Amino acid sequence: PNNFFLIAGPCITESEAIVMEVGEKVSGICKKLGIPYIFKASYRKANRTSANSFTGIGDEIALKLINKVGKTFEIPTTTDIHANEEAAMAAAYVDVLQIPAFLCRQTDLLHAAAKTGKIINVKKGQFLNGPSMKFAVDKIVQAGNDQVWLTDRGNMFGYQDLVVDYRNITWMKSIGVPVIMDCTHSLQQPNQVGGVTGGNPELIETIAKAAIATGADGLFIETHPNPAVAKSDGANMLQLDLLEPLLEKLVRLRAAVV
Amino acid sequence: PNNFFLIAGPCITESEAIVMEVGEKVSGICKKLGIPYIFKASYRKANRTSANSFTGIGDEIALKLINKVGKTFEIPTTTDIHANEEAAMAAAYVDVLQIPAFLCRQTDLLHAAAKTGKIINVKKGQFLNGPSMKFAVDKIVQAGNDQVWLTDRGNMFGYQDLVVDYRNITWMKSIGVPVIMDCTHSLQQPNQVGGVTGGNPELIETIAKAAIATGADGLFIETHPNPAVAKSDGANMLQLDLLEPLLEKLVRLRAAVV
Amino acid sequence: PNNFFLIAGPCITESEAIVMEVGEKVSGICKKLGIPYIFKASYRKANRTSANSFTGIGDEIALKLINKVGKTFEIPTTTDIHANEEAAMAAAYVDVLQIPAFLCRQTDLLHAAAKTGKIINVKKGQFLNGPSMKFAVDKIVQAGNDQVWLTDRGNMFGYQDLVVDYRNITWMKSIGVPVIMDCTHSLQQPNQVGGVTGGNPELIETIAKAAIATGADGLFIETHPNPAVAKSDGANMLQLDLLEPLLEKLVRLRAAVV
Amino acid sequence: PNNFFLIAGPCITESEAIVMEVGEKVSGICKKLGIPYIFKASYRKANRTSANSFTGIGDEIALKLINKVGKTFEIPTTTDIHANEEAAMAAAYVDVLQIPAFLCRQTDLLHAAAKTGKIINVKKGQFLNGPSMKFAVDKIVQAGNDQVWLTDRGNMFGYQDLVVDYRNITWMKSIGVPVIMDCTHSLQQPNQVGGVTGGNPELIETIAKAAIATGADGLFIETHPNPAVAKSDGANMLQLDLLEPLLEKLVRLRAAVV
Repeated sequence: PNNFFLIAGPCITESEAIVMEVGEKVSGICKKLGIPYIFKASYRKANRTSANSFTGIGDEIALKLINKVGKTFEIPTTTDIHANEEAAMAAAYVDVLQIPAFLCRQTDLLHAAAKTGKIINVKKGQFLNGPSMKFAVDKIVQAGNDQVWLTDRGNMFGYQDLVVDYRNITWMKSIGVPVIMDCTHSLQQPNQVGGVTGGNPELIETIAKAAIATGADGLFIETHPNPAVAKSDGANMLQLDLLEPLLEKLVRLRAAVV
Repeated sequence: PNNFFLIAGPCITESEAIVMEVGEKVSGICKKLGIPYIFKASYRKANRTSANSFTGIGDEIALKLINKVGKTFEIPTTTDIHANEEAAMAAAYVDVLQIPAFLCRQTDLLHAAAKTGKIINVKKGQFLNGPSMKFAVDKIVQAGNDQVWLTDRGNMFGYQDLVVDYRNITWMKSIGVPVIMDCTHSLQQPNQVGGVTGGNPELIETIAKAAIATGADGLFIETHPNPAVAKSDGANMLQLDLLEPLLEKLVRLRAAVV
Repeated sequence: PNNFFLIAGPCITESEAIVMEVGEKVSGICKKLGIPYIFKASYRKANRTSANSFTGIGDEIALKLINKVGKTFEIPTTTDIHANEEAAMAAAYVDVLQIPAFLCRQTDLLHAAAKTGKIINVKKGQFLNGPSMKFAVDKIVQAGNDQVWLTDRGNMFGYQDLVVDYRNITWMKSIGVPVIMDCTHSLQQPNQVGGVTGGNPELIETIAKAAIATGADGLFIETHPNPAVAKSDGANMLQLDLLEPLLEKLVRLRAAVV
Repeated sequence: PNNFFLIAGPCITESEAIVMEVGEKVSGICKKLGIPYIFKASYRKANRTSANSFTGIGDEIALKLINKVGKTFEIPTTTDIHANEEAAMAAAYVDVLQIPAFLCRQTDLLHAAAKTGKIINVKKGQFLNGPSMKFAVDKIVQAGNDQVWLTDRGNMFGYQDLVVDYRNITWMKSIGVPVIMDCTHSLQQPNQVGGVTGGNPELIETIAKAAIATGADGLFIETHPNPAVAKSDGANMLQLDLLEPLLEKLVRLRAAVV
């Protein structure tokens, strides 16, 4: 098979310095390893557990920075949208629109995204199985857009843990669309008492290897030069320095998957 | 304790005949039994599993019918909203705005709802525990509205089943807001192959009794004269004829809760 | 309905002083409140998480103490068995044999227990639903014993939590046998890092009230004068002083269940 | 790394013809592919859901057949035991004693097995996480036996489904013992209404590939020439004809794991 593709970036557009640094380093690594790369960052976080958490530096400012990363390093970009009216706004700056997991059944949002003509990457809700994502794909196709990707980010396993069920890769691939594994959010530890989601970044390699072995077409990995000071999802992002050795192992594994 | 209150109605505003029939019968029963009653119907379904399912008769038409039920039978009304711009629209017609479970962490939607000044009833996501709902309450209070209710509708238990964890009633009551048990949606059987959610209406009594015993302040029960022909959630609504004998048992139980 | 019955005692037969104290106090409370009472203690713990945990003072010594409690306070007694050869041994001392949840599908153990002619109380595995317990009942009945009780003690909910699904009470009652709720083990927090199971005793009232409301015939509550120093399950037992006020609430609730 | 090893055979010793056929074919395939092979069959099923299901042809007869397979094809053998007294009996015929998942916390059984001096392969309970298996390993080591293997066979995911959490491979490997993935039982669908466990054999490849990629040392696969007529676990065994092409893919994958 051809190589897998990578969607990666910091969780949120914190600053120009951070997004440019991540875009430059990751695009360099991916060029070297022959991995198609799509830069990802959120321009705003719309569903933080707590209203006291950081949500962004301004939508348009952030979208322009994401767009600048794409142009500077000649790579496609993606971001996530949260309301119908955001679809057209974000589509002016990125190549792929991501639908958040909690919102994957909101018909109007899927239709608004579909109508932009961009590739639509729908995250599977933590409460859904792979076969049910067929209905999300259908909603987008019915709105006239057949460029749909599906991303798994784990399923609820009790209140404070997620589990990745790799049967979902097989099931979603049978729908006939590219399937991506979100290796970092799948390791979240939600519903923590303090209102800040936890994580297990030392297990990213486990999640990613199983995804490649079971036929995932792409990987999604949030990465940051210094997760400990990141303004969102610091608990589960991969430290940027660790990305290249991880990808080297995964490229080698991918070549052996039949 | 005083009696519990009831939020009830057909899942969706199918027709004037249905909402008026349900409003009349349920308000009559509740008057007789001393149960404060709030009429509920959706004006539109925004997150049906499949895009082929019925979604409504038109937002304004449906909202006017809901309002008419309230005025005719002199009862408060409620409906659910799905996007920021719907908050003000729906608030013009109902007394309580309901936030759907999938959307309970969307900060902008909670803020838009809060600013209407209406009572905001937030359904607990199927992926959240009771203590985490404190953060949803905080978002609404920070927006200047301290009239918040929380409703449990079960938690994911594998892909095709929900389980009600009654610890959540105790936990959510400790947040200091009224707590409601959604007795019908808690019995849904999601992620079915055909794209139509299943149900177990014969267990509504079990769910409701445990809720009253553990101190729920209110119950939410979708009911329809003939669930088999209902246009949404037919698999788990209570047949209207069965409501009165059920409520009689629950009123008696409530009086014994200390 | 008649009143519910109570199975209660310290988790394990730690010492004569403890079992006699618990037997005396609980039998006194139950006599006053009209609750049929069965004294319960384990003579040995056979499945402690860690081999370093306390397992008992000797089987025969412990069984004789359990028997002495029964004779002294004129109450029936029960204990749990873990291997086929223990069935006859324990049956010489107690009135009800309890099958542990992990072992509820071990056909030989169920048959050995059945053949003692005692009442057999099978705990539902944390991995089973109520309807599946029909097969455990059938195994006992086929061995010639139709005195079977079923006890729910919660289901796995992720790794470190249990949830009580009250639908199981309804489902198990439909099998036609008495159904008991184990209010203390249902609150365990298994799979803790240190090898000692945790608990939430402040929620015992929630678990018990929902059980009575949904028609449980009996309750199982482990209780100890001082759980903090108990040699097993200290994290989830009810402090003995709290038992009487709890039972008063439950008797009142029971009288209102129809 | 060296190649993975394989534990495989029919679920139960149905007849001499079946065990000899499976032993011959699988040992031939494994020799060709360089996979160390251990023949597995149960001599008796002790925890069938329903007492009406087949349980065996006689313990000693079956154990002798298992032993004959090993001698004939010059391969080690394994079987599972269910009671303390079975440990020594089975140890006379096989090289590896397997502890069933439901019994993995029974201290006496682990001790009895340990004392035979055989390799002890403990299946992780469907209700346990990987780190908790350290306590099972400790129990065996404390009894003087340091040859312990751990096998994952999935975790309960609702009542009628299992999910494999591959984090458990990483966690169990960190205990310092060989880790095996049971690819067939992990696909069981328990708690079915009819009392016969279901399965999904078309997903065996998904389960096995993810296990190899995440570093499993061995695989466990039940296989039968004709699963549809097998006397136990017919719903999830791999058809024998499909084994060789599957193993070829896995050997190639294994060589790429770093």
